[in-house]
Amino acid sequence: MLTVEVALARAQAAIGMIPGEAAETIASAADPERFDWRGLVAGVHATGNPVVAFVSQLTAIVRAADESAADYVHRGSTSQDILDTATMLLCRDALRRVHTDLLRTAGALAGHAEAHRDTVMAGRTLTQHAVPITFGLKAAGWLGQVLDAITRVERVLATALPVSLGGAAGTLSAYQEFTERDSLDLVEPFAAELGLVAPPAPWHSGRTPIADVAAVLAFVSGSLGKIAADVAVLTRTEIGELAEQGAPGRGASSAMPHKQNPVHTTAVLTAARQVPALVSVLHQCMVVEDERSAGGWHAEWQPLREALRLVVGAAHNGAALTEGLRVFPDRMRANLALTGGAIVSERLGAVLTPVLGKVETKALLTEATAMTADRPDDLPDVLAELLRQHGLDADAHRWRALCDPEEYTGAAARLTDRAIERYRAVVK
Amino acid sequence: MLTVEVALARAQAAIGMIPGEAAETIASAADPERFDWRGLVAGVHATGNPVVAFVSQLTAIVRAADESAADYVHRGSTSQDILDTATMLLCRDALRRVHTDLLRTAGALAGHAEAHRDTVMAGRTLTQHAVPITFGLKAAGWLGQVLDAITRVERVLATALPVSLGGAAGTLSAYQEFTERDSLDLVEPFAAELGLVAPPAPWHSGRTPIADVAAVLAFVSGSLGKIAADVAVLTRTEIGELAEQGAPGRGASSAMPHKQNPVHTTAVLTAARQVPALVSVLHQCMVVEDERSAGGWHAEWQPLREALRLVVGAAHNGAALTEGLRVFPDRMRANLALTGGAIVSERLGAVLTPVLGKVETKALLTEATAMTADRPDDLPDVLAELLRQHGLDADAHRWRALCDPEEYTGAAARLTDRAIERYRAVVK
Amino acid sequence: MLTVEVALARAQAAIGMIPGEAAETIASAADPERFDWRGLVAGVHATGNPVVAFVSQLTAIVRAADESAADYVHRGSTSQDILDTATMLLCRDALRRVHTDLLRTAGALAGHAEAHRDTVMAGRTLTQHAVPITFGLKAAGWLGQVLDAITRVERVLATALPVSLGGAAGTLSAYQEFTERDSLDLVEPFAAELGLVAPPAPWHSGRTPIADVAAVLAFVSGSLGKIAADVAVLTRTEIGELAEQGAPGRGASSAMPHKQNPVHTTAVLTAARQVPALVSVLHQCMVVEDERSAGGWHAEWQPLREALRLVVGAAHNGAALTEGLRVFPDRMRANLALTGGAIVSERLGAVLTPVLGKVETKALLTEATAMTADRPDDLPDVLAELLRQHGLDADAHRWRALCDPEEYTGAAARLTDRAIERYRAVVK
Amino acid sequence: MLTVEVALARAQAAIGMIPGEAAETIASAADPERFDWRGLVAGVHATGNPVVAFVSQLTAIVRAADESAADYVHRGSTSQDILDTATMLLCRDALRRVHTDLLRTAGALAGHAEAHRDTVMAGRTLTQHAVPITFGLKAAGWLGQVLDAITRVERVLATALPVSLGGAAGTLSAYQEFTERDSLDLVEPFAAELGLVAPPAPWHSGRTPIADVAAVLAFVSGSLGKIAADVAVLTRTEIGELAEQGAPGRGASSAMPHKQNPVHTTAVLTAARQVPALVSVLHQCMVVEDERSAGGWHAEWQPLREALRLVVGAAHNGAALTEGLRVFPDRMRANLALTGGAIVSERLGAVLTPVLGKVETKALLTEATAMTADRPDDLPDVLAELLRQHGLDADAHRWRALCDPEEYTGAAARLTDRAIERYRAVVK
Repeated sequence: MLTVEVALARAQAAIGMIPGEAAETIASAADPERFDWRGLVAGVHATGNPVVAFVSQLTAIVRAADESAADYVHRGSTSQDILDTATMLLCRDALRRVHTDLLRTAGALAGHAEAHRDTVMAGRTLTQHAVPITFGLKAAGWLGQVLDAITRVERVLATALPVSLGGAAGTLSAYQEFTERDSLDLVEPFAAELGLVAPPAPWHSGRTPIADVAAVLAFVSGSLGKIAADVAVLTRTEIGELAEQGAPGRGASSAMPHKQNPVHTTAVLTAARQVPALVSVLHQCMVVEDERSAGGWHAEWQPLREALRLVVGAAHNGAALTEGLRVFPDRMRANLALTGGAIVSERLGAVLTPVLGKVETKALLTEATAMTADRPDDLPDVLAELLRQHGLDADAHRWRALCDPEEYTGAAARLTDRAIERYRAVVK
Repeated sequence: MLTVEVALARAQAAIGMIPGEAAETIASAADPERFDWRGLVAGVHATGNPVVAFVSQLTAIVRAADESAADYVHRGSTSQDILDTATMLLCRDALRRVHTDLLRTAGALAGHAEAHRDTVMAGRTLTQHAVPITFGLKAAGWLGQVLDAITRVERVLATALPVSLGGAAGTLSAYQEFTERDSLDLVEPFAAELGLVAPPAPWHSGRTPIADVAAVLAFVSGSLGKIAADVAVLTRTEIGELAEQGAPGRGASSAMPHKQNPVHTTAVLTAARQVPALVSVLHQCMVVEDERSAGGWHAEWQPLREALRLVVGAAHNGAALTEGLRVFPDRMRANLALTGGAIVSERLGAVLTPVLGKVETKALLTEATAMTADRPDDLPDVLAELLRQHGLDADAHRWRALCDPEEYTGAAARLTDRAIERYRAVVK
Repeated sequence: MLTVEVALARAQAAIGMIPGEAAETIASAADPERFDWRGLVAGVHATGNPVVAFVSQLTAIVRAADESAADYVHRGSTSQDILDTATMLLCRDALRRVHTDLLRTAGALAGHAEAHRDTVMAGRTLTQHAVPITFGLKAAGWLGQVLDAITRVERVLATALPVSLGGAAGTLSAYQEFTERDSLDLVEPFAAELGLVAPPAPWHSGRTPIADVAAVLAFVSGSLGKIAADVAVLTRTEIGELAEQGAPGRGASSAMPHKQNPVHTTAVLTAARQVPALVSVLHQCMVVEDERSAGGWHAEWQPLREALRLVVGAAHNGAALTEGLRVFPDRMRANLALTGGAIVSERLGAVLTPVLGKVETKALLTEATAMTADRPDDLPDVLAELLRQHGLDADAHRWRALCDPEEYTGAAARLTDRAIERYRAVVK
Repeated sequence: MLTVEVALARAQAAIGMIPGEAAETIASAADPERFDWRGLVAGVHATGNPVVAFVSQLTAIVRAADESAADYVHRGSTSQDILDTATMLLCRDALRRVHTDLLRTAGALAGHAEAHRDTVMAGRTLTQHAVPITFGLKAAGWLGQVLDAITRVERVLATALPVSLGGAAGTLSAYQEFTERDSLDLVEPFAAELGLVAPPAPWHSGRTPIADVAAVLAFVSGSLGKIAADVAVLTRTEIGELAEQGAPGRGASSAMPHKQNPVHTTAVLTAARQVPALVSVLHQCMVVEDERSAGGWHAEWQPLREALRLVVGAAHNGAALTEGLRVFPDRMRANLALTGGAIVSERLGAVLTPVLGKVETKALLTEATAMTADRPDDLPDVLAELLRQHGLDADAHRWRALCDPEEYTGAAARLTDRAIERYRAVVK
């Protein structure tokens, strides 16, 4: 808020609303160390917002420095102008940190995608092996999601964080009292001082900036949550295809020395469980009556702060998670073998349908996979045998080849390449 | 889903994956009337998704038309490709209707803003009169919010609604089985058939499109909710500054013949209470494990459908509300008079501060407004008297002029003009 | 609503407010078949609630039967009395079905707990094997959760579903107009007609009953969601300790004949993702202004209906899931062996601490488990060797016994017995 | 957590698991001042939970006091036992404070209800005057809601806050290692030490206690929110029927000296906007996989803490709000007069229906209220005139009496008495 009051004073000086020296006196007096923080907290309880007590302390501090400058503090302003603008600075700072960590994450994922472009693993749907994919494709999918998040964060950082300047009820009338010029002329220099956007109108009760930030926080949290949800599955003891890089002591259990808990994954999932609900409060707070609502504005403060905190943390953990991710191609291959050829039953269907028709094919494959449920390696032979019973010439060798999951990854490699290209275009 | 299967077949024909005649047979057989809808519902219960039974009925219908074409139905496809693409069509249809109604709303608001550019009314904060505003500014504020919503809806309509094409686990491998060409070549013609976007990658488990739609739904709902929240206040019996245009019979009470309920306002507020929570489910559903989640995908269906329905309804009611809104400037003036000059105490402060200093000024104004709480018209005289007691020369006439709320609306008129200009730029 | 109007008429007849014959005429005319349903839907759009058109149709129907009885329809009543009471009937019906299915679920789980009281499996925390548990204990934990849900459903069914009777603004004044008796005397017979509770006061704007139902719906959904979340893990291809009983055709994939999707599990998880957000809307709708809110009441309708639908479905699927659950003790044992003795490292710590002290013990176990990470069976020997290096007498046999997970299940069996006892007490 | 570790040690001493002296050494060493709080925070980051570092510091502190006692610290325990039990203590403390403030609120409301048993005011529905009520009834309605909240808080305090005791995966096996007795015997003395409930089973992944607390927090928040929503309406400048008692300096505006913001009301509404969403996170966190979830447990911490904080604050503000509430019966009467007799049109309908029939009556009243919309006092005369035109004998005096809102408050007084009686029964 200090930064905001200083910027406001300087902007007012720039349009001749207050003397330039007063602005500089305010600027040089504005030292966080001089504030009585307990008094500020008490002030929140007394007035229902943190600005009233803050302005009164700041006025006293400035007065101590220069009696005449004190009356220029917070001139024409209202609590919400200061607090909303300070909130935008907070959002910018948080989103910049998020952006940095998302770039790290994207870089790490592009590396994994490239390294494992052809590492075959089981694709899973509804908890079951479905058809083969590659780990490259999986990493590429995560990368695409992170790039989507990056572009949305960049859009908000570039265009969606405005200063707030409206006075008591959005008319800037108190600012107008102190200047011959159009009070709206104050907006641009105020925004320029802080590097924020000059909004088309005051937004005290039109909460577009909060809604835009909220949406991007939900997006980032969900995007990282997707990655963490996958990692949580793939690091399971029985699956073991991935592991978090364990820093010494991190993720240690208090009772079980052998355990290495996936702490980054857990942290990301923890955030992902909370952010959508916090964002729903922020969306709900768009619905406010009057020029300032009784409660609607105030209810934004804590959820926004908390959502920012969680997403900054999630982005940081997401970077650590992806940069340190250990990949075990052998386990991927071993798991893939669990269902033998059944994992390519879709392909077998595609091959058989032109010969047997759709219905017959489905029946035959269902029978064959049921028969080999506990000896999946025998699927090719069983299939060949069943086809022979149908009077068809069936070559077990050919079926063995068709059942090889490595040969059934479709466009995985090309999609991986595309995602890497997209990454290069985004970060260039 | 029918439209989607037809588009898929035609796209497959376009790249030579299936015969062109087969695609046209599917297209001409695709008649909603031929489906057994009860059977489809039963199919959802049996398989957990609506596509399996649908494809099986469609296959039968096509087979009845042309035995040989049946095997080309749904070729290489998976439930999620069909359902997600159909969902995007649904979103497009809904958002187009929302867009149309938001434009109507913006037009109506621009009209109100222009007509009431200089209609003074009380600005209210935390339920209390604060400083004067104009109804033009209030309408301009609503208009700005609606324009923000329009630009966001347009962005989603133009760029954020892709087809889904990934096959069982995002590799398109089953499509690949049926063509010599790159299966990814199927994406562009499929998108072109439907007028949707070609996505950079399959999005079965990367839910960017749903998240983007969700965010815009929350935004529209909140924007209209803000307007309705204000109208609900201003139509109160005691305030009476606005009224919904009552169509005969609409908003009638079953027991109280004199009552005209604000039904459009109520409908918008009803939606606004629900949409943020539904959107939070959609954001939560970004966090899905595997190539398709057990529950994460399915949990999107109903909240998305419901949120679309609510927002389409809210936009429709919002248009009716704003187009039919009756404005009562006399009541605005009368209400403004309730607090007499106290509503401009901020201005009085600005005038007195240079003379008395900040602290003294506040004390004096607090005293004067307390003294005249139940006879607000006397404020100028009381002020003059108090100033005289402070040894200052005080002219009651001047104070009466300063206390005129009509003279204290700051940048309201200019902000109103700006919003109307912005409206013209957006709808041009 | 028909049931409610009939009950109201009969209650009014019981206290002499209307003639008994009129009540019976209303009762016998009240046939859903006679209503014009499209007209009712149109009425909702016109008036913003479904009761106005309904009462007008009912009046016409009764008039057709007996001119004189028509004026007794809906006498003194208001939309909300009818709709809220009808909603309570709906809640009762839904919660009874939920209750029945929860009892089935509890029975199934008690059976599993008993059958697998001593079936050892891996306990998992943060996705990793932690210490051994039994499947009996796991089923007992689920059972406890379901019993908690049952007791809460029973409490709501028994005490929390009242009739609504308040008239236009909660004073019952319109009812009072038609009787010499105290209008409050109408409440008891009205409640008795419907088997609902007589509330202490009208609850048009005091939404205790909705909040109580909402809380129990969230509770049931979460309780079943916990079970489904566990089943989803344990049915994974690599883990395979549980499987849903596949009914023929259920859970079939449209493209992959070999797959059996866990459809009940998925359905329960689908509901569990949505219900908390719907419940949050209902909780939010407690905050309503006035004797009836503009939007607050209306926003309850759809989320409540949807939450009831989801929880009824979840309970039904939960019963099918648990009754048909297949348990594979061999896979449990095989998975348990994956980490060899490491899964009892906690126990080894307990044994070593008195000898080596806490710090030394932790270091030694961390070393031993790290050394045997990929040959877990060797843990006992490695431990014995390390202890010998510490100058301690170490018997490999003893360490092999200590490393047996079957011998380290603590109070699992006794806790299982307790849960079964509790089940018997609840269902007795 | 300190309290919990001490209680655990004493309970273990009580069943002979550790020496009594060790327990007392731990108890006397357990001094919050001795902890390195920065180290604890760093520990959270390193291990993902606050217990690991805490136990290690506590062990060091105890070791410094008595080398031999150190090994008895946290014996057999796991982070979650300590943290969940500490959370229950926190919930108890918060709910006790809430309970105290709800009792104050109920007392204040009972006072208002009694004092204004016969103070007539306008009942409002959908923002419009509907029929007359009394302020006594309104206060009684709020009181009923608060009494509902009190009984639910009492139920949770009495029965729903258990200790957590399960060890690493709910089997208590590590506790079992250190005792010849049944490890379950530890539960009762542990609960007794802390005055908490002994649960039927460990609840690490069966989150009944959290869900119960969550539900009651949503209930309290919503109940107080209802009151605040009403007060926010009735304190509006134009309505002015209620006002918050302004403590000097409280609710002051930074820019507008005349304004007295309703800060308690705003604070309660601020909480009410947030709590339902936080509660939805807690309900969602019932759905956790495994014996301890990766993220599901951790995601409870902050929302629970925040919801407790908000509800404690709301209850405190609710008490201040209701105790200091100023009531203005004159304004209530004046506002009631705004709609003249129209506010009793429902009654007029009841009187006319037997004479004119339902349809005719509605038409006539709609006409009469439309004709007198801007001169409501003339309604009785206009009605009498219209009736005469219908050939009915109409006495203007009688109609004037029927139009008196004071005579049309139905069961308001009796409902007020009942609520006060109920209050006395609850607080007795």
